[in-house]
Amino acid sequence: MDLTSIKDPIFLKDMTIPELEQLAQEIRQFLIEQLSVTGGHLAPNLGVVELTLSLHKVFSSPKDKLIWDVGHQSYVHKILTGRASQFDTLRQYKGLSGFPKRNESEHDVWETGHSSTSLSAAMGMAIARDLKKENDFIIPIIGDGALTGGMALEALNHIGHEKKDMIIILNDNEMSIAPNVGALHNMLGRIRTAGKYRRAKEDIEYLMKKIPTFGNRIATIAERMKDRLKYLLVSGLFFEELGITYLGPVDGHNMNALMENMSYAKKRKGPVLIHVLTQKGKGYKPAESDLIGTWHGTGPYKIESGDFIKPVGSAPSYSGVVCDTLQKLARKDDRIVVVSPAMVVGSKLVPFAKEFPDRLFDVGIAEQHAATVAAGLATQGMKPVLSIYSTFMQRAYDQIVHDICRQNLNVVIAVDRAGLVGADGETHQGVFDVNFLRSIPNIVIMMGKDENECQNMVYTAMQYHDGPIAIRYPRGNGYGVPMDQTLEEIPIGSWEVIKDGTDLAILSFGPLLHDALDAAKQLKLEGIHAKVINARSIKPLDRDMLKELSEKNMPILTVEECALEGGFGSSILEYLHDQGNHGHLVDRMGIPDRFIEHGSVKELLHEIGLTPEHIYLRAKHLLSKHHSPTHRQRA
Amino acid sequence: MDLTSIKDPIFLKDMTIPELEQLAQEIRQFLIEQLSVTGGHLAPNLGVVELTLSLHKVFSSPKDKLIWDVGHQSYVHKILTGRASQFDTLRQYKGLSGFPKRNESEHDVWETGHSSTSLSAAMGMAIARDLKKENDFIIPIIGDGALTGGMALEALNHIGHEKKDMIIILNDNEMSIAPNVGALHNMLGRIRTAGKYRRAKEDIEYLMKKIPTFGNRIATIAERMKDRLKYLLVSGLFFEELGITYLGPVDGHNMNALMENMSYAKKRKGPVLIHVLTQKGKGYKPAESDLIGTWHGTGPYKIESGDFIKPVGSAPSYSGVVCDTLQKLARKDDRIVVVSPAMVVGSKLVPFAKEFPDRLFDVGIAEQHAATVAAGLATQGMKPVLSIYSTFMQRAYDQIVHDICRQNLNVVIAVDRAGLVGADGETHQGVFDVNFLRSIPNIVIMMGKDENECQNMVYTAMQYHDGPIAIRYPRGNGYGVPMDQTLEEIPIGSWEVIKDGTDLAILSFGPLLHDALDAAKQLKLEGIHAKVINARSIKPLDRDMLKELSEKNMPILTVEECALEGGFGSSILEYLHDQGNHGHLVDRMGIPDRFIEHGSVKELLHEIGLTPEHIYLRAKHLLSKHHSPTHRQRA
Repeated sequence: MDLTSIKDPIFLKDMTIPELEQLAQEIRQFLIEQLSVTGGHLAPNLGVVELTLSLHKVFSSPKDKLIWDVGHQSYVHKILTGRASQFDTLRQYKGLSGFPKRNESEHDVWETGHSSTSLSAAMGMAIARDLKKENDFIIPIIGDGALTGGMALEALNHIGHEKKDMIIILNDNEMSIAPNVGALHNMLGRIRTAGKYRRAKEDIEYLMKKIPTFGNRIATIAERMKDRLKYLLVSGLFFEELGITYLGPVDGHNMNALMENMSYAKKRKGPVLIHVLTQKGKGYKPAESDLIGTWHGTGPYKIESGDFIKPVGSAPSYSGVVCDTLQKLARKDDRIVVVSPAMVVGSKLVPFAKEFPDRLFDVGIAEQHAATVAAGLATQGMKPVLSIYSTFMQRAYDQIVHDICRQNLNVVIAVDRAGLVGADGETHQGVFDVNFLRSIPNIVIMMGKDENECQNMVYTAMQYHDGPIAIRYPRGNGYGVPMDQTLEEIPIGSWEVIKDGTDLAILSFGPLLHDALDAAKQLKLEGIHAKVINARSIKPLDRDMLKELSEKNMPILTVEECALEGGFGSSILEYLHDQGNHGHLVDRMGIPDRFIEHGSVKELLHEIGLTPEHIYLRAKHLLSKHHSPTHRQRA
Repeated sequence: MDLTSIKDPIFLKDMTIPELEQLAQEIRQFLIEQLSVTGGHLAPNLGVVELTLSLHKVFSSPKDKLIWDVGHQSYVHKILTGRASQFDTLRQYKGLSGFPKRNESEHDVWETGHSSTSLSAAMGMAIARDLKKENDFIIPIIGDGALTGGMALEALNHIGHEKKDMIIILNDNEMSIAPNVGALHNMLGRIRTAGKYRRAKEDIEYLMKKIPTFGNRIATIAERMKDRLKYLLVSGLFFEELGITYLGPVDGHNMNALMENMSYAKKRKGPVLIHVLTQKGKGYKPAESDLIGTWHGTGPYKIESGDFIKPVGSAPSYSGVVCDTLQKLARKDDRIVVVSPAMVVGSKLVPFAKEFPDRLFDVGIAEQHAATVAAGLATQGMKPVLSIYSTFMQRAYDQIVHDICRQNLNVVIAVDRAGLVGADGETHQGVFDVNFLRSIPNIVIMMGKDENECQNMVYTAMQYHDGPIAIRYPRGNGYGVPMDQTLEEIPIGSWEVIKDGTDLAILSFGPLLHDALDAAKQLKLEGIHAKVINARSIKPLDRDMLKELSEKNMPILTVEECALEGGFGSSILEYLHDQGNHGHLVDRMGIPDRFIEHGSVKELLHEIGLTPEHIYLRAKHLLSKHHSPTHRQRA
């Protein structure tokens, strides 16, 4: 059928299983073709085609509420709810989001992006439903990886306690973003072999029937075993033990089995979990045989060969440079240990993991735990690196405050994907970390202007600093600059004059520094001499350089890829006023006070006014004030 | 013995059990007497006397590492490590901390305050130990309540996976701060009745022996049941299932049993958990019979009667006022629901819970889950209140950003204990929330000048606002001001002139506003007319009033009980510069860039320079600049 003609999932109600299976194949084909052009989360979506079809067949969205944990597996749901025609704009500026969005469709009842929130959201919705005396079904769909996130476990605990009606779909694809870690995964592994448990259960029942004459003793046993055996032998004992009815495991590509279990679950009271086994990448060979998650989220690719269409002549990625630097340092310093919350592949740490398998710890989707493990390591004289995306660091805020900074421990936080990230959009932009880190005592925050300075900062953090330090670096590639073979210290609290000038100073850090430089060149054409400063030490500031600017009364323009409220620019205002320099001309450019949606970083920067052209204009405007009669009088 | 003569726990090695039991009674007596004067966490410490003695007898601190989760149960540990003589300064300014502190003793290897961090810290230490090829024992001591915190579950998962040697003490006192919530608690409850499991196990073994002739079939059963029965019947199956050896339950007041289990655990490889049953308040009748946690942390009390020595004539507490207001509103609006992460007693929500038992949800020590449950409720048209201490809100930062603010949902965050909290010290000061909240788009932040304005703000949040809103209020009591019987709107984004003046403007909010007023009175005596503004809307600012101040070029002094970096004062600087008013005189007073230790709020405010006298002096200083020839020239 023409998928773009779908307006609403209601048409599924009349379809037979063979028709649904046919549709599943068409959806797969559609996804493989569309994503080969746009890129996107191919493998997770290929894995849930039958699951999503079954959910929309058995339940009635939006009355019944489908809550997609993480949300990158919601493409099939988007197709079935009338959005197939927009797939050519997937994850593009002003286009279809790669995650559920409430303003896209009434079928998207909950927005996600970070993992492990669906069960808590479902709990809130279930409480609301019961208070309103309504009767809709609430169905969170959560992966086995997301289940290791602390808040999912907090939620399971509460769900088991409250016993509210809810149908949890455990989408167990044996591999979340990185190969799953942890005992919980092992437990699911045991559950996967549930055939054995089933047989054991039959054995027991057989035994119970065969020995009724065994007297009171066996009756007692049978009585006592009844509940506990259910937990144990029908498998799923973890969930059952928490008070959640366990169904499954179900073949996630068998729609008959899926719908049967869902229909049964609808009749049950209390929380029910259906354990669904799916295969990521199902139906597309290159993705099916993927072991390390290459096909989890991809750029464009050639359908036939499965080759990625890479941009030509890429410079090394920042993540890669950080890994490389850590390897170099770790060879000489056996105190260096890396902790990653399920981002070993994403942060390109595989080479470190291979060289130092006993010094890299992937702790699963567990940011809080990761931060505190790093702190624990530091108390023992180790030099731990907490490798974490800026956006995921938000999950570990309290641990960074209390366990790392309050104890003033030697933890290097390698803040990956700092700044705008592009296609992943709102939920993944790394634009708050400078703001929330900078009010924490003891921490140092730095960001390099290129991959060479980045490697030197990692070196500096390890070699020249005691206490917590965050080294930020952006998503993607550097500039292909020459790399120092001998690493050099970047003194903490030091800035660098990139271009001298006398008319005004532009302070920036990270990628935007290059735009500031472009703006300065444009200004120079008009005879305006801007001093461009690499404000690489975000906290502490370079007080000497600021003092100089202050004494020269040079207007300051700050340019940052961070939220403006309480960001780097504000710290400049704070400094000047604290020094009693209240008359200094300062203008701040940065991320405005709203969430920034998806699109290419370039498009987003243009939208929010952070381009060389914008910087050029703001600098001119600032200068015009400086020279205006009103301000002259003041200054 | 004279407890103050103890320098080091090594003396315990030579003591017999009867001597230890005698010592236990002396320690109890000491705690009951000392805390009757100073106040402190009496019940938790009375519960762990034998446990702590046994730990220090069996293990060798500080080589072996005792990690106290939360840490308020470390008093006995402090006594045994040479700090008994300092107990008269407990939780007082410059005195002994109520939590482990690394600068107090080498026996305090990990600082705590917030719950559920000990297992992650232990994991970090265990990794470090193994890499350094050392052989010390690592012993986190965690309560059953703390176990429901997501990060503890994240850690258990990782610990089970890595199988590092570690001896976890589960201090199960059947009641954490509030009665425990959740399925995990029920599970521990089942484990507590482990006698039954033991019997069941015996039954099964008996059965197995008696029916060997039952043929191959039973052999198969026995084989299959072997491992699983261990999990099930010896109890502790949850931990075993995660890969952690379970020992116990052990009577936590029987030193023989405790030491036996600890000695056995020392010989085991991999992670071991000893399930210890303790009674909070053990040995002090009033605390033993406490059901709702009154004796968890107390002020001074009369030993004989167990009566608390309350300050006379207290005004109503802010928490109480908020609860009262919510009850009033909830009677008329059945969409109001309260979510609390184990702080129902602390935040004085018991009356609400009693009146609306189905509309208050205590989700356990699970701040992340609590925030997202509130968000889930809001998506369904409810009006949820997330009642949370400022310091614990740090645990839910990402959920507030993503689930509440990004979806722009109607969640009222009742931020209890905002500002300095006093005796609990560093880990509990609520001084970062304005900073980390204010850079989040969509959120409104307010704080009332007294309990009446506080109730009106809660009303405003419910009645006049769509979207996320945080209402901050301090720990402790209000001022006994008259309470409006008809609640009134406090327009969001509106400030209030408390005292008019023409020379300068002092902007403050919350309790410090009263100090600002006192300072203004002092200034008036010298003929200086300070305008005092109740800047109750922290975000958004009152732009009209700021515009007026800006136009009048009136110097501004901001006074806040928040971290200065990126705080409220910075938002004033941002506003003025954004408006092009670069010459405005602004001075900011607030919490300096370091962690603030324990002491009375008054002492702490004095230490950091936030008293009427300090405000008075800073105002004069600011004015002197305003009138100085240099600034006159500028202005």
